[in-house]
Amino acid sequence: MENDFYSQDNHGPFELFDLGDFKLENGGQIPDCKLAFSTAGKLNAAKDNAILLPHMYSGTSKHMLDVLVGEDLALDPRKYFVILPNQLGNGLSSSPHNTPAPFDGVRFPELTIGDDVRAQHRLVVEKFGIEHLALVLGWSMGAQQTYEWCVRHPSMVKRAAPIAGTAKTTPHDWLYTQVVADAITSDPAWNSGQYTEPHAVTEGLKNHARIFALFGASTELYKQSGWSEIGIDSMDAFISGFWEAWFASMDPNNLLCMLSKWRRGDVSLGSGGDLADALAKIQAKVSVIAFAEDMFIPVRDCKAEQELIPDSELIVLPSLWGHFTPLVPIPGNRDPLNAAIAKLMATEVRELEYSE
Amino acid sequence: MENDFYSQDNHGPFELFDLGDFKLENGGQIPDCKLAFSTAGKLNAAKDNAILLPHMYSGTSKHMLDVLVGEDLALDPRKYFVILPNQLGNGLSSSPHNTPAPFDGVRFPELTIGDDVRAQHRLVVEKFGIEHLALVLGWSMGAQQTYEWCVRHPSMVKRAAPIAGTAKTTPHDWLYTQVVADAITSDPAWNSGQYTEPHAVTEGLKNHARIFALFGASTELYKQSGWSEIGIDSMDAFISGFWEAWFASMDPNNLLCMLSKWRRGDVSLGSGGDLADALAKIQAKVSVIAFAEDMFIPVRDCKAEQELIPDSELIVLPSLWGHFTPLVPIPGNRDPLNAAIAKLMATEVRELEYSE
Repeated sequence: MENDFYSQDNHGPFELFDLGDFKLENGGQIPDCKLAFSTAGKLNAAKDNAILLPHMYSGTSKHMLDVLVGEDLALDPRKYFVILPNQLGNGLSSSPHNTPAPFDGVRFPELTIGDDVRAQHRLVVEKFGIEHLALVLGWSMGAQQTYEWCVRHPSMVKRAAPIAGTAKTTPHDWLYTQVVADAITSDPAWNSGQYTEPHAVTEGLKNHARIFALFGASTELYKQSGWSEIGIDSMDAFISGFWEAWFASMDPNNLLCMLSKWRRGDVSLGSGGDLADALAKIQAKVSVIAFAEDMFIPVRDCKAEQELIPDSELIVLPSLWGHFTPLVPIPGNRDPLNAAIAKLMATEVRELEYSE
Repeated sequence: MENDFYSQDNHGPFELFDLGDFKLENGGQIPDCKLAFSTAGKLNAAKDNAILLPHMYSGTSKHMLDVLVGEDLALDPRKYFVILPNQLGNGLSSSPHNTPAPFDGVRFPELTIGDDVRAQHRLVVEKFGIEHLALVLGWSMGAQQTYEWCVRHPSMVKRAAPIAGTAKTTPHDWLYTQVVADAITSDPAWNSGQYTEPHAVTEGLKNHARIFALFGASTELYKQSGWSEIGIDSMDAFISGFWEAWFASMDPNNLLCMLSKWRRGDVSLGSGGDLADALAKIQAKVSVIAFAEDMFIPVRDCKAEQELIPDSELIVLPSLWGHFTPLVPIPGNRDPLNAAIAKLMATEVRELEYSE
């Protein structure tokens, strides 16, 4: 299905890495599967300056590039080679909206966070010949992928910064992702996923956006009209011009695909379901970054996982923007986050032991 | 519209107080308006043992009676005369589902919290000849009515305990009440409020219930499977058997009527919009009770209002049940709440000055 939103103009430049017929962890495959990615900076001769930066729900590589990579930031492209993969299902990589029949739309197979990491591993190894990543980091679903990398490839990841995300989706977030999905699927225009106009599901996407708005920023930000910090002059404009507009152009089945992946996120799936066992495998130096005001990834959930990771610390940042903190380009949000990443990069790390 | 849910069997015994043609603050009237209420205990000769206990969203007098009144509780009916009014719009008092045309269903007029308090004031004064209330208390929307009583009739209310509610609805809760209303109205079966079967709006009520479930208890309760404390054995049963079942039999237009009233709750409407001015009028000894884990009436919102009330204190109770704490009959919830009410009732209060 044609959808202009997912274009080089909006999200590029990005390239496609060919995964061939890509077999999936929960069965099935994506034929002729493409992993979209972008890069910033140059891989050095020793290949020891590579950083992997996967993205959050509903995002693309471009969002992460804009927010976290820059010459004035910790992730300085003059120093590091930053690889920004796009999630399978996000609209740039192989996704429900761009995959031909019989795997199009709701018939697109069920994905796992592990599938993303397997695809990204091939990109890192086959395309770039990289053996170690100086850092893997990501926000929200990007944190899920970060944890999955650390557990699945402990001898490849030197440092990691999962930001406002969990290694295993909590029961509350299981429900949260179900409820926002329901907001889409309960719109009659969704039509069991068989909509024919790319932007038919207007009301469903709006309701989905508004539930995100309830959890995405803190109750206190609403009270203080915090949107004025980014030039928005009313709550109405914040809800419609910011949250609803964010999702309005996206493909509903792509979003549902990502939500389903998020809901089932669990790094312990490969360790017999024991989260402590899984997290104990991590060799990376890990800074778990949480936002004090996050309504759906509360600090205590991040702390409980951090305490299971051998060489780790918990960093709590206080912005009223809560979960949405990284995407809001104000110094109060960006500087502390950037400082935490810079500090981690300045830390010497032990030699990783082969464990795979 | 017939709806067996709103019966004496389910919510009685209750009586009806005749308000005649009841004019409303935002214009219009409810012809032949009825205020449903129940009582517990006996009014003494001095008429100084009366307590008013309004109820929360989607509730009735029966819920409050079951939870907060009893011989083993602070609100002991052997000692006090407890009046339990039903909100206009709740299904027992005059409401969208039980009012004849032309004010039935969505044509039922817009209400304010002030309308409830005006109706309750008539009940208290005309029916019972009561001049002073020893205590007004309520939870959630019951707290809204409690604050409204204190501000509107400062010389009548000796003590007050607003529990997990606000004197002025916060911007976040404005959005929250809008989003849960949208969940109902976006169900095609709602049909612009013109459904003809009382239980047609199944999916809308389900989605509405699930958003309540996301905010009604804490994220940590979900993590700890806290529902096992009340004999529920899975999250699925908690969502469907508890939250969805709670709302399933209710009339959607009744719920929308109450949500609209909640959304616009503001005790300062009668004081030119200045909340500090309005709360400064309160003469009652006030215990503002907040729940540490409340996701949509956070402690700081309660604290900000408490600090504007002359003779007041803030009591924070820690249950993982968050907003839903009062309705969960376990000692960890019930005992601290009951102790806070008992302490308030044991406090001597100053003579109230005439101010109306």
